Amino acid sequence: MIRIGIVGGTGYTGVELLRLLAAHPQADVRAITSRKEAGTPVARMFPSLRGHYDLAFCEPQDAKLADCNVVFFATPHGVAMAQARELLAAGVRIIDLAADFRLSDPAVFERWYKMPHACPDLLAEAVYGLPEVNREAIRSARIVANPGCYPTSVQLGFLPLLEAGLVDTRYLIADCKSGVSGAGRKAELSLAFAEASDNFAAYGVAGHRHLPEIVQGMNRASRDPVRLTFTPHLTPIIRGILATLYAPLRDADADVQAIYERRYAGEPFVDVMPPGSLPDTRSVRASNTLRIAVHRPPDSDLALVIAVLDNLVKGAAGQAIQNMNLMFGLPETSGLEAPPVMP
Amino acid sequence: MIRIGIVGGTGYTGVELLRLLAAHPQADVRAITSRKEAGTPVARMFPSLRGHYDLAFCEPQDAKLADCNVVFFATPHGVAMAQARELLAAGVRIIDLAADFRLSDPAVFERWYKMPHACPDLLAEAVYGLPEVNREAIRSARIVANPGCYPTSVQLGFLPLLEAGLVDTRYLIADCKSGVSGAGRKAELSLAFAEASDNFAAYGVAGHRHLPEIVQGMNRASRDPVRLTFTPHLTPIIRGILATLYAPLRDADADVQAIYERRYAGEPFVDVMPPGSLPDTRSVRASNTLRIAVHRPPDSDLALVIAVLDNLVKGAAGQAIQNMNLMFGLPETSGLEAPPVMP
Amino acid sequence: MIRIGIVGGTGYTGVELLRLLAAHPQADVRAITSRKEAGTPVARMFPSLRGHYDLAFCEPQDAKLADCNVVFFATPHGVAMAQARELLAAGVRIIDLAADFRLSDPAVFERWYKMPHACPDLLAEAVYGLPEVNREAIRSARIVANPGCYPTSVQLGFLPLLEAGLVDTRYLIADCKSGVSGAGRKAELSLAFAEASDNFAAYGVAGHRHLPEIVQGMNRASRDPVRLTFTPHLTPIIRGILATLYAPLRDADADVQAIYERRYAGEPFVDVMPPGSLPDTRSVRASNTLRIAVHRPPDSDLALVIAVLDNLVKGAAGQAIQNMNLMFGLPETSGLEAPPVMP
Amino acid sequence: MIRIGIVGGTGYTGVELLRLLAAHPQADVRAITSRKEAGTPVARMFPSLRGHYDLAFCEPQDAKLADCNVVFFATPHGVAMAQARELLAAGVRIIDLAADFRLSDPAVFERWYKMPHACPDLLAEAVYGLPEVNREAIRSARIVANPGCYPTSVQLGFLPLLEAGLVDTRYLIADCKSGVSGAGRKAELSLAFAEASDNFAAYGVAGHRHLPEIVQGMNRASRDPVRLTFTPHLTPIIRGILATLYAPLRDADADVQAIYERRYAGEPFVDVMPPGSLPDTRSVRASNTLRIAVHRPPDSDLALVIAVLDNLVKGAAGQAIQNMNLMFGLPETSGLEAPPVMP
Repeated sequence: MIRIGIVGGTGYTGVELLRLLAAHPQADVRAITSRKEAGTPVARMFPSLRGHYDLAFCEPQDAKLADCNVVFFATPHGVAMAQARELLAAGVRIIDLAADFRLSDPAVFERWYKMPHACPDLLAEAVYGLPEVNREAIRSARIVANPGCYPTSVQLGFLPLLEAGLVDTRYLIADCKSGVSGAGRKAELSLAFAEASDNFAAYGVAGHRHLPEIVQGMNRASRDPVRLTFTPHLTPIIRGILATLYAPLRDADADVQAIYERRYAGEPFVDVMPPGSLPDTRSVRASNTLRIAVHRPPDSDLALVIAVLDNLVKGAAGQAIQNMNLMFGLPETSGLEAPPVMP
Repeated sequence: MIRIGIVGGTGYTGVELLRLLAAHPQADVRAITSRKEAGTPVARMFPSLRGHYDLAFCEPQDAKLADCNVVFFATPHGVAMAQARELLAAGVRIIDLAADFRLSDPAVFERWYKMPHACPDLLAEAVYGLPEVNREAIRSARIVANPGCYPTSVQLGFLPLLEAGLVDTRYLIADCKSGVSGAGRKAELSLAFAEASDNFAAYGVAGHRHLPEIVQGMNRASRDPVRLTFTPHLTPIIRGILATLYAPLRDADADVQAIYERRYAGEPFVDVMPPGSLPDTRSVRASNTLRIAVHRPPDSDLALVIAVLDNLVKGAAGQAIQNMNLMFGLPETSGLEAPPVMP
Repeated sequence: MIRIGIVGGTGYTGVELLRLLAAHPQADVRAITSRKEAGTPVARMFPSLRGHYDLAFCEPQDAKLADCNVVFFATPHGVAMAQARELLAAGVRIIDLAADFRLSDPAVFERWYKMPHACPDLLAEAVYGLPEVNREAIRSARIVANPGCYPTSVQLGFLPLLEAGLVDTRYLIADCKSGVSGAGRKAELSLAFAEASDNFAAYGVAGHRHLPEIVQGMNRASRDPVRLTFTPHLTPIIRGILATLYAPLRDADADVQAIYERRYAGEPFVDVMPPGSLPDTRSVRASNTLRIAVHRPPDSDLALVIAVLDNLVKGAAGQAIQNMNLMFGLPETSGLEAPPVMP
Repeated sequence: MIRIGIVGGTGYTGVELLRLLAAHPQADVRAITSRKEAGTPVARMFPSLRGHYDLAFCEPQDAKLADCNVVFFATPHGVAMAQARELLAAGVRIIDLAADFRLSDPAVFERWYKMPHACPDLLAEAVYGLPEVNREAIRSARIVANPGCYPTSVQLGFLPLLEAGLVDTRYLIADCKSGVSGAGRKAELSLAFAEASDNFAAYGVAGHRHLPEIVQGMNRASRDPVRLTFTPHLTPIIRGILATLYAPLRDADADVQAIYERRYAGEPFVDVMPPGSLPDTRSVRASNTLRIAVHRPPDSDLALVIAVLDNLVKGAAGQAIQNMNLMFGLPETSGLEAPPVMP
């Protein structure tokens, strides 16, 4: 059994970790911290977990995190980097679901997250936790930077085209639509039911924090530098991201479908659908699968790629557990095998 | 033209007043106050009002409310009673959409709202603004206490039965379902889309502030004292209340349908539907109409009454304007004639 | 491994059986029939099942159901009773998710379902599949009549009060609210998104098919005959039922909470919540748990019970699998242990 | 008063015409036809219209359409062109909300709508009813082809850029999101609440009927031929379209905001919002306004335009009434002045 600690368990990624780990055959969740809720039983705050956890939230200093094999940070940005050095020293491995270790250039981090980076040396060793790209490095990583939800969908959506050098990288567009849970478990007026329901809007058009993370990953896969227009939208669903990606093809005759199928052959959590498919977000709801469909729109030279994932699973907690499985030599799909919930 | 001031215009009842008054032929909205948003143009905060209002929110002291004919309070409880005396002295009439003047017994007010009443003498003269009950008194009132949303639906739903003395008043049940806007325009976690959407729950079972208001109104209509069980539920819709009312009939042969039709004949905003009807909330969306259907469930001595209204219109801003129309000798339906929005 | 056949797998209960059985350690789904979709791979119709099933829908006569250990009927009413005799003769056990075997009196069945009963003798031996009531009989049953979704919530909600003889059974009320999936996977205008969303309504007030099933079960538990008013409502959620139950207490001092806790002690899928709890439907979403809270509303002699379940799981497919587990001597919770999906 | 007939009034555009015309000072709705519902009072089918209409649906032959000044066709494609000649001969003017007169080339019509065109000569005289483009021609038109919902949003969104010759017309993208009412009032499984709610998907990627209509309109405004990639998506809202438009700028320094403001200055129903705005669909709900915001995304040469409208109003019935107002010399905004409904 893997001894697990979770720092900051009161948000959606925290409770989703708990939901998934409850069904994981090797997971032993030892501690879950929350300063604000210390003493509250997890199942009192989240009645859906009644009968699954006896744990209460505890103060970080009482959590004995040093005794864990791995600690997940499901915290706001800035927390993991403050605690990383001490945990590593104790032999604990870290999976950060926030952004502290995602951007390899500390200056870029500081520009987008408005705080200095606490440990640039550790940043240098951290592995970006996208198993479809970095599987081997993740196995031995001490620190895994779990990707953001949009970045997972957009990178995996564009990757085969970039690696194959098939597209004009100066004119890439990612028109993305996210469910509301992507904004976190917060009391915020714009996320209120009476505001967000029966409504649709774009946001973050002038610059979203996921943009540098996406571009960093895309540039790693591409010979030519990537210029990406990224437009996030809020859609009134709880879970789910659908990314509609547009890329001008250099070779109009390329067999794009085959390229995707080849690239993701054997990937347990990437499903390249048959030609003509139109994946919807519910087809991955509550599961770790990302589904992709590739289209050639009429009268155009574009490749149009549609990628869907559940932002709390493949876009957060599920991918974190996938990374944990890799880090501890478990089957990559352990605890992540339940089918999506539909309808 | 009626010169109108609105105190506290940033909530849903405030913006709904603005929406409805924009289409009112005699309304001249002179000022709308908000301490927090003073200086912000109304149409910047609420883009739906672009082109309809040039006003900006202003500090209360800058609003020249004393020059208005009527001031609406769309504020938290406690504000209207603090400002009422001064406005009345200036000859301004008041319509309070909060609870300050709803409960005629100050002790009951204090128990449920946890604050002393600032002006019990004014409370004594205030008229409860349910036109179907108090039409004449409203015409000449200086202070109108605009009813709550649940109280409007439950009182109008039970009234004909109570007035006719037809039911056993010891066993009355109001199982009510409200849309989320009824809770106000607030950043509150339990009202967040990701919490309230695709979810259904009861709340306030141990005691809701609308209970004493409802019972007060029902007792006024009933010879026998009323005991009411009131169970509010939150349903994932934006606007609308549906009240399902259960009352044991004393006379199983009474023609309940006829009693309702007679009671509300000529009422411009109460629609008694034909036998067998099942009114839905969208049939009154964005309108001031309350629809009622009366049923006799199989194998029971109960009358089952279903009442629907839009909590922001007949349950708040629309009823307030209906009251204003009465107070100023205008046609009662002025500005309230647009059909519901469906779908 | 248990060899399983599913007749009629294209509705929501059928696909939910597939979802849950995919995670069941002893389930071997051999065949799934659909006349209309014969030849279509299950995973083409339901992309959420891609990677979980290679099966295609087949014609009933090609399904070799006689080789199965158990056959689930996820069909319209009338299908199971037509095929039951032949399957039983082949030694196959039957779990019917429709109503063919729920009402023990064939005349009552015929009145509500407008068709003659095909096999009253088999009806006589069928066991009503509510494990909390009939656990032992289910173990050895050849035919299990899986309860309806409303009946499961209302019966389990009232049961402890009835068994204890604590309430006046002449004045029982069940005000129930169901998600839209309860109506099945159908092209029906009233279930369309643009009709049912942002809307709330009652239906079936004049008489719903679940009423006789509920009353039959309640009468079995009660000394005195039960008169129940049952009001179903449609709420814009996908999954979930919340039943608000009202029962006049004979003894106002009874410790109702203790009675419920005692009655359901040890039940793996009934969760009696602490006093004051307000269970919401999402707290059981996609799980087989029914949660109950017991209240005493102010100024009344009523017990108010709130019960929530997922209509497709504890209200249909999950309970069917719970019954299968009992019939085949498996742990009762096999395949049903994943926590609810929240948010 | 204008004598009005409506052919085919049981769909969403029909009932929306009725809703809006109920508030129109010059509208006298004389007849509304429906073969299927002949004899049914309009207000029985649509309870939201109780008290607003005494009319019943009637057979087309009983409707005395020849006595009307104008007939709206809110029918499936193919109906208006079959009846147009006779009505015109009687001096009746026609506004077709379907596609019969939208595509000026009959061959294009036949390719996309799979039916021969019944009257190419009338097609030649029909005016495309986009007032912002064809205002003068509409005034005197006998036949107005009311634009589709997507075409209204995409054309008005791109128009200023095309007219100014500012963009590379070979690489235009319209990523559009529509509410479910856009698909019409139909019993169709994919539009069911339990399918479309809490879900997001693209559709029609291989070719949508609105594509040729959009491109036709764009080509009329552009010197260079337009190549457009049009991706419609279904979002779980009732009303509303949001179009996200991408266009490569030829001149990166162009003042795009000023171009839009100038182009639409004085337009009563096009609102060019201030720089940085992010219009949401609810800001136009139930109103005839289209709002536009223009952005320049970071690190790109694109103009990004966001346009929102209510698909049933500016995208259908409201624009039809705007056209009627023009045709009959009424103020263009008659009956269309009520503010949007928010929240």
